[in-house]
Amino acid sequence: MEELATEKEAEESHRQDSVSLLTFILLLTLTILTIWLFKHRRVRFLHETGLAMIYGLIVGVILRYGTPSTSGHDKPFSCSQEDRPFTTLLVNVSGKFFEYTLKGEISPGKIHNVEQNDMLRKVTFDPEVFFNILLPPIIFHAGYSLKKRHFFRNLGSILAYAFLGTAVSCFIIGNLMYGVVKLMKLVGQLSDKFYYTDCLLFGAIISATDPVTVLAIFNELHADVDLYALLFGESVLNDAVAIVLSSSIVAYQPTGENTHAFDAAAFFKSVGVFLGIFSGSFMMGAVTGVVTALVTKFTKLHCFPLLETALFFLMSWSTFLLAEACGFTGVVAVLFCGITQAHYTYNNLSVESRSRTKQLFEVLHFLAENFIFSYMGLALFTFQKHIFSPVFIIGAFIAIFLGRAAHIYPLSFLLNLGRRHKISWNFQHMMMFSGLRGAMAFALAIRDTATYSHQMMFSTTLLIVFFTVWIVGGGTTPMLSWLNIRVGVDPDQDPPPTNDSFQDGPDSERRNRTKQESAWLFRLWYSFDHNYLKPILTHSGPPLTTTLPSWCGLVARCLTSPQVYNNQEQLREEDSDFILNDGDLTVTYGDTTITANGSSGLHTATTSLDGKRTKSSSEEALEHDLGAADHEVTSRGTRLVFPLEDNA
Amino acid sequence: MEELATEKEAEESHRQDSVSLLTFILLLTLTILTIWLFKHRRVRFLHETGLAMIYGLIVGVILRYGTPSTSGHDKPFSCSQEDRPFTTLLVNVSGKFFEYTLKGEISPGKIHNVEQNDMLRKVTFDPEVFFNILLPPIIFHAGYSLKKRHFFRNLGSILAYAFLGTAVSCFIIGNLMYGVVKLMKLVGQLSDKFYYTDCLLFGAIISATDPVTVLAIFNELHADVDLYALLFGESVLNDAVAIVLSSSIVAYQPTGENTHAFDAAAFFKSVGVFLGIFSGSFMMGAVTGVVTALVTKFTKLHCFPLLETALFFLMSWSTFLLAEACGFTGVVAVLFCGITQAHYTYNNLSVESRSRTKQLFEVLHFLAENFIFSYMGLALFTFQKHIFSPVFIIGAFIAIFLGRAAHIYPLSFLLNLGRRHKISWNFQHMMMFSGLRGAMAFALAIRDTATYSHQMMFSTTLLIVFFTVWIVGGGTTPMLSWLNIRVGVDPDQDPPPTNDSFQDGPDSERRNRTKQESAWLFRLWYSFDHNYLKPILTHSGPPLTTTLPSWCGLVARCLTSPQVYNNQEQLREEDSDFILNDGDLTVTYGDTTITANGSSGLHTATTSLDGKRTKSSSEEALEHDLGAADHEVTSRGTRLVFPLEDNA
Repeated sequence: MEELATEKEAEESHRQDSVSLLTFILLLTLTILTIWLFKHRRVRFLHETGLAMIYGLIVGVILRYGTPSTSGHDKPFSCSQEDRPFTTLLVNVSGKFFEYTLKGEISPGKIHNVEQNDMLRKVTFDPEVFFNILLPPIIFHAGYSLKKRHFFRNLGSILAYAFLGTAVSCFIIGNLMYGVVKLMKLVGQLSDKFYYTDCLLFGAIISATDPVTVLAIFNELHADVDLYALLFGESVLNDAVAIVLSSSIVAYQPTGENTHAFDAAAFFKSVGVFLGIFSGSFMMGAVTGVVTALVTKFTKLHCFPLLETALFFLMSWSTFLLAEACGFTGVVAVLFCGITQAHYTYNNLSVESRSRTKQLFEVLHFLAENFIFSYMGLALFTFQKHIFSPVFIIGAFIAIFLGRAAHIYPLSFLLNLGRRHKISWNFQHMMMFSGLRGAMAFALAIRDTATYSHQMMFSTTLLIVFFTVWIVGGGTTPMLSWLNIRVGVDPDQDPPPTNDSFQDGPDSERRNRTKQESAWLFRLWYSFDHNYLKPILTHSGPPLTTTLPSWCGLVARCLTSPQVYNNQEQLREEDSDFILNDGDLTVTYGDTTITANGSSGLHTATTSLDGKRTKSSSEEALEHDLGAADHEVTSRGTRLVFPLEDNA
Repeated sequence: MEELATEKEAEESHRQDSVSLLTFILLLTLTILTIWLFKHRRVRFLHETGLAMIYGLIVGVILRYGTPSTSGHDKPFSCSQEDRPFTTLLVNVSGKFFEYTLKGEISPGKIHNVEQNDMLRKVTFDPEVFFNILLPPIIFHAGYSLKKRHFFRNLGSILAYAFLGTAVSCFIIGNLMYGVVKLMKLVGQLSDKFYYTDCLLFGAIISATDPVTVLAIFNELHADVDLYALLFGESVLNDAVAIVLSSSIVAYQPTGENTHAFDAAAFFKSVGVFLGIFSGSFMMGAVTGVVTALVTKFTKLHCFPLLETALFFLMSWSTFLLAEACGFTGVVAVLFCGITQAHYTYNNLSVESRSRTKQLFEVLHFLAENFIFSYMGLALFTFQKHIFSPVFIIGAFIAIFLGRAAHIYPLSFLLNLGRRHKISWNFQHMMMFSGLRGAMAFALAIRDTATYSHQMMFSTTLLIVFFTVWIVGGGTTPMLSWLNIRVGVDPDQDPPPTNDSFQDGPDSERRNRTKQESAWLFRLWYSFDHNYLKPILTHSGPPLTTTLPSWCGLVARCLTSPQVYNNQEQLREEDSDFILNDGDLTVTYGDTTITANGSSGLHTATTSLDGKRTKSSSEEALEHDLGAADHEVTSRGTRLVFPLEDNA
């Protein structure tokens, strides 16, 4: 009889698991149908993510107040162990042994009011789920579908906003919040400890912007492509920066007695941890991407698209796990893996696999993103350890506003000193406005909600996400027209020189000079990429036998793919010197505004050249070229119209 | 310091999780690369699933004997509770409270030797993972990619093999194994209890055939399509039957003292449970499919393929959860959901979504299947509760051989009495030979490995799977040629009348008579499906205004989709009577062998007619038709060439 009772209980638990997952699926289904309705009727005041949150909120209210509060919680078990908690526990229940696993610590005050409701407990996921299952596809998709041309054109500014900007924002918010916490202590609003490191951690958590709503509307309205690139690049990279920053702050552990005060040694250790984790994750992602590129190049896997897609998927996922296993940050590794895959591996895939991988990650990204936003709505009511402190919340809103202002305007000013195409005031205001917080801030905040300070930070983060997604998401369209930002831009065309943010005409000489001065690093990288990396990792580019010194002839011959080699023999005389000094290449950009830092722009150009070079010869190169064109059109909606005539 | 230690431990555990998942991913990657090599070199003696198992075995050996045996296990905790085990446990460890969750019961003898090795424990998954995550995509894909024409042509025989055959096999194996167990008891080889119901459960577990290897080779060699349909249909449906059968056997609980002996009341209760679960799961699957069809029909979701694909995926998955939440069997529901989706919803999807959904489920199926087979290889060494009993294993091999022989040959004899196209001896031998066991048997066996008898059953099942996959998989090609079974068949063509298994020529009159006699049920279903279900659920078929009685005109008008309605107005005079008596339709099958039970064959024909009917009018119908043709070609490799001229 007892056995039966246990079995029944397990069955009941399984059924509740099913019901809770079903709740989320129905939520997502409802969201999808409403999204369709909104898209159908061109409603823009509420974005799908905002919608998902609203549905989540409604279901959360129902679950919280509509379900009976069954006390599934048992009285505390009073047998105290001696030294430390075990990870597994064997308990002897009237002669039978049962195994228990450690779930976590509970603060003593919470023992009696946590988990009164089984259903609420079931819908509250393990935070690791967000980091290990839901974020990787979102971040990978961001890297894989990067609009490379506009991204690389603005790379310098994007890196400045993402690295410097996030660091500035983190420290400003952290310090302001420390002031708020001091104030709260004065007026007696603080009932537990709240350290300076906690404030800094909050700064790191809340500095990860996520303008998914803004970018969706930008995409729909075809708003200015450079502004899009700035916002997208910043948000993708500052997610990575925020993760690593928060890990480093957690690792900041001052030595000696005086914990939680400033310590130079610990600070530099944190900076070291930051650099180590970031570069390690970056390397890990790049290496997996390169391995995948090599595998897809040197096997004829493209005859079997299913195998190819499966391999691509597994290799990309293994980046994440590999980085986690090595103690790096999987999410950051996955981002750079996505960028590498898009730059190299994508060229080796069969046409079918290209669309398959795109579509697979698109669906995964869509589902994961909407799941996270519904869950956020749900969490406001089902999460049982909320601490809402009005002073802290108001302080946080002011702090994130000031934190964003303090990095957007000064950084833009500094960047404009170097940029030929100034970031106009309207763009700066739009960037200021678009700094909404989303999935990444939530995921970072939910990661650790064990202590009082973390719970308060989590509740505040949730409110900030709600507010920014609804208000900023809804206000994007009015804001765009108020700030006079161009919409309906054809992404194939570059902004006209008359635009107020792009002030110089087609002055070829001056442009050349600027190129020579500012972009030598990118020129170096581009020629290395074009002459060595591309030929080694893909089927495109010049054969290595021409680019490598003659004494590594054998290696070069092995690594060069037969297609390239054949093409080269046919056309050696006409383009060998053209490839070696690609300075000419950039001159041909006629009325475009690329200043030779467009590694990707040049890559596209190279593809076009390849297409021209091999036009007469092999089918495979044609297929490859067609695929590349397809890639441009479907994934980025942007294609480089390159004046081929100038080079012929 | 203590807090830090706990954190470190959690980090270590997270790292081990990553490593164990990484192991599987590397295994799969290796498998994919070797599969490619095998396909590239046309190696057929070892199938990819066999290969996955071998790699799994190798990694299992390395993990078992190569990793240090760290004792991560703590001494049993001696505080005994009073009544029953709690699901959560609060433990007071020197003033701090920790929460533990129940993992399961451990048999007392095993306490000291289980889980000596952390790594081995990490790679041993929760069996629920197989049922809830890995099986659903495999089964859904089977339903969604069903070669409907050949399946429905042989539906009667398939149902007989799947239902009667599996039941017969289960009882014969169960009884034989009971004899073996008695024998073991006599010679003192049995050290614990082994009931009659356990033997029957083993019969149910091991009766689920899984000829994935055989079918892959059939596909490659284009072996006889009817044999393919028989094997495929049997294996898909008998998976469902075996699941429900094993649940019913577990539910068989005789009343009173005399447990584990025969009890008529309990037996009928089990039969009732079987019928209830099966029909409930069937209904659940069909209903979700129908709802998805209605949603995709009445919204213009096909303008947004991403939303459509996401909806399709979520609805199909929710079938599984819904069935589980209601106490039915999710896997069975998912199978019928897949069939319904392919029959109705597929027609409403946009062209892009059709290929997206196909490809998505193809990738998921591929990954899940190879994961299960690698895991099987791994489990032989990493599962720590194996009980290998030579007598039981030899007995089991003989029993499954006899059990399969005892249902294939008698059932084929009985079916041949009714079938016009006899199942030849060679086909019967091939079916006998192809009865290998795979993922489903494994999943059923690993579900419960708590007791002695279940552990012995699990180990035996594992060996049977290995043996049959390697030997039968490798022997398929020689066996096909030895049995003189046609290969290189064009699936578009029907077998020539000269084939020894299809003995009658194109005798039109006799065929018509046979049709009238045998297939009235299918004719009824077909005309209901064609006149009412198809028009309600999809954009094809005749408008309801013509098929429904005139008093439900309003309802009919609302439900009929505008396309169909428009088409109908243009072509009312020429095809209204043609649709009403579809008897003519079947006559036109010229030299084919369909006897009007080809609901799907007729459906394809109808699509072609639609295509012809609407050729001149709307773009949408053309797109739909193109999509249907695509569906035929990509997913089934078979297309019905329908003599349209006869109807014009």
